[in-house]
Amino acid sequence: MATTKTAAVVGAGVIGAAWAARFALAGVDVRVVDPNPDTSRIISEVFANARHAWQELELDPESLTRGSLKIVDSITEAVVDADHVQESAPENLEVKRTILEQIDAHAPIDSVIASSTSGLKPSDLQATLTHPQRLVVGHPFNPVYLLPLVEVCGGTQTEQWAIETALETYASLWMKPLHVRVEIDAFIADRLLEAVWREALWLVHDGVATTSEIDDAIRYGFGLRWAQMGLFETYRAAGGEGGMEHFIRQFGPTLALPWSKLTDVCELNDELVERIVAQSEAQSGQYSVRTLERIRDRNLVGILKALEANDWAAGNVLATQRASIREDSSQFSQQLSLY
Amino acid sequence: MATTKTAAVVGAGVIGAAWAARFALAGVDVRVVDPNPDTSRIISEVFANARHAWQELELDPESLTRGSLKIVDSITEAVVDADHVQESAPENLEVKRTILEQIDAHAPIDSVIASSTSGLKPSDLQATLTHPQRLVVGHPFNPVYLLPLVEVCGGTQTEQWAIETALETYASLWMKPLHVRVEIDAFIADRLLEAVWREALWLVHDGVATTSEIDDAIRYGFGLRWAQMGLFETYRAAGGEGGMEHFIRQFGPTLALPWSKLTDVCELNDELVERIVAQSEAQSGQYSVRTLERIRDRNLVGILKALEANDWAAGNVLATQRASIREDSSQFSQQLSLY
Repeated sequence: MATTKTAAVVGAGVIGAAWAARFALAGVDVRVVDPNPDTSRIISEVFANARHAWQELELDPESLTRGSLKIVDSITEAVVDADHVQESAPENLEVKRTILEQIDAHAPIDSVIASSTSGLKPSDLQATLTHPQRLVVGHPFNPVYLLPLVEVCGGTQTEQWAIETALETYASLWMKPLHVRVEIDAFIADRLLEAVWREALWLVHDGVATTSEIDDAIRYGFGLRWAQMGLFETYRAAGGEGGMEHFIRQFGPTLALPWSKLTDVCELNDELVERIVAQSEAQSGQYSVRTLERIRDRNLVGILKALEANDWAAGNVLATQRASIREDSSQFSQQLSLY
Repeated sequence: MATTKTAAVVGAGVIGAAWAARFALAGVDVRVVDPNPDTSRIISEVFANARHAWQELELDPESLTRGSLKIVDSITEAVVDADHVQESAPENLEVKRTILEQIDAHAPIDSVIASSTSGLKPSDLQATLTHPQRLVVGHPFNPVYLLPLVEVCGGTQTEQWAIETALETYASLWMKPLHVRVEIDAFIADRLLEAVWREALWLVHDGVATTSEIDDAIRYGFGLRWAQMGLFETYRAAGGEGGMEHFIRQFGPTLALPWSKLTDVCELNDELVERIVAQSEAQSGQYSVRTLERIRDRNLVGILKALEANDWAAGNVLATQRASIREDSSQFSQQLSLY
């Protein structure tokens, strides 16, 4: 059960709406604010997806205390009594600063303000706040209601208690908070994703491979490895009896080969955008986005359950969650029997 | 059942030994050659792992016709009547050329010679051969007996029939052959891996994150996505109702940000190697390499089964394999009932 009792979700696109669902499913009362008139529909669609996924994971028993989900009209109303504010506005420093300033002016002084930014630095985000000490980055991964990772990073003015509180809050939502100790652009995961993204764009640009071929090169190969071990542990296993040192000394020199074109940034002009869009259409056009989401979620549920059965990585987060729910259910039954 | 009847495996390290196991489990007779005196032990250990994994996948029924596995003393003996030769020698152009020349001199003229190289170009590998037209790259992914992907790439002198035969042979081993149509260094998957590897080394070098933190950033987040969808299909799903075009036009501009340090190659000096080795030891030192392999294989088995249940990606390869085994079993039963 979450230690946070009330959360404000400011900005309810794909990421914000999924935050709202995760908070509510974990028993936190949520107030959502977003200028989009479709917010109510988006929130209920994403919540339905999230709840369905948790039911498939057998993590949504009747005994689970769910939080309330309320859409409000102003940032003030959303944040005024929030323990935790999660900002998921568009990825633009000026836009985020304006919104964070409003949050800062109305949120309780001891609440944590977390930004879902995937690239902006917390020091830049907090620079114009009156109470910058409680601003952290809490960067999640889509779909937020299923993937456990959230990167937590403080800026130069962030105080230690804010980081610790954010780590606790996310852990209580059954996530895997990763403290990014050094403040860098794009944190850790998106630095890696950015590298792959650039290289993939070059491959499409140069006509070496289509979007479909690139995706197959990932999901029939190293993608299967990375769902359970990362880069280093996989290579350690591949190093054979010589282990990591053998592997790295053997593999190391290839770094000097001019394999990648990462020294240049590929110009994303209309021609390249159109090529990618057309290839993606040929690859996945038979599925609506809703269908793709359902396929993705069903696969993630299956993979998470497989890892839980093996007591490993993301499966461990699930196991902890399940144990906690069992404990709550047992207390719930005991309370019932007292009546 | 494989269309290839006899395969030669030249070089039996981690990759070559796993090739031998996959060929034999798929019913192909294999001759293995490697100067290492431990070859026999390595082959039987890797074969035991592979067979165990296939049993866990319920893909090793009694009715399955397994190929023979024989270790021989010379390249000549290994290749002389092989339909398919798989070379997995160390990643060095001169070493590979010397070995490929010997293979070329003794393998039947209509056999395919495939190199497991992860980075050398087929045009360079075939340049010194007498019969270069049958040389292809067949680049697999560790563990070869579980991951379906194999990249197939021809050089300037490779003839079409050799590529088509290689694609058929690998498909008959229940793999997912991906034809790399344009010959580039490192093909497709390793271009992407190389990009991540460089970035990860910088993160360790700069003290931003440890090997363990980087691995967690992968396996609790986007690694779970990539086991089932690749980069582009995932982003299409994340684009919401606007789809790929919306996503790419929104995300595109961040490419120009100076996020990554990929313009430079990190010097892999002793200090960095030692740091990585120490961090990897802290992360995974409690497991022997054999244990890590078993954990990895058990997880891959679980993930593959989960994807098969959802009729998706690598799970489809498994489903095809299972259907084929069922057909063989049924023929096997029918044959038995004739006696």
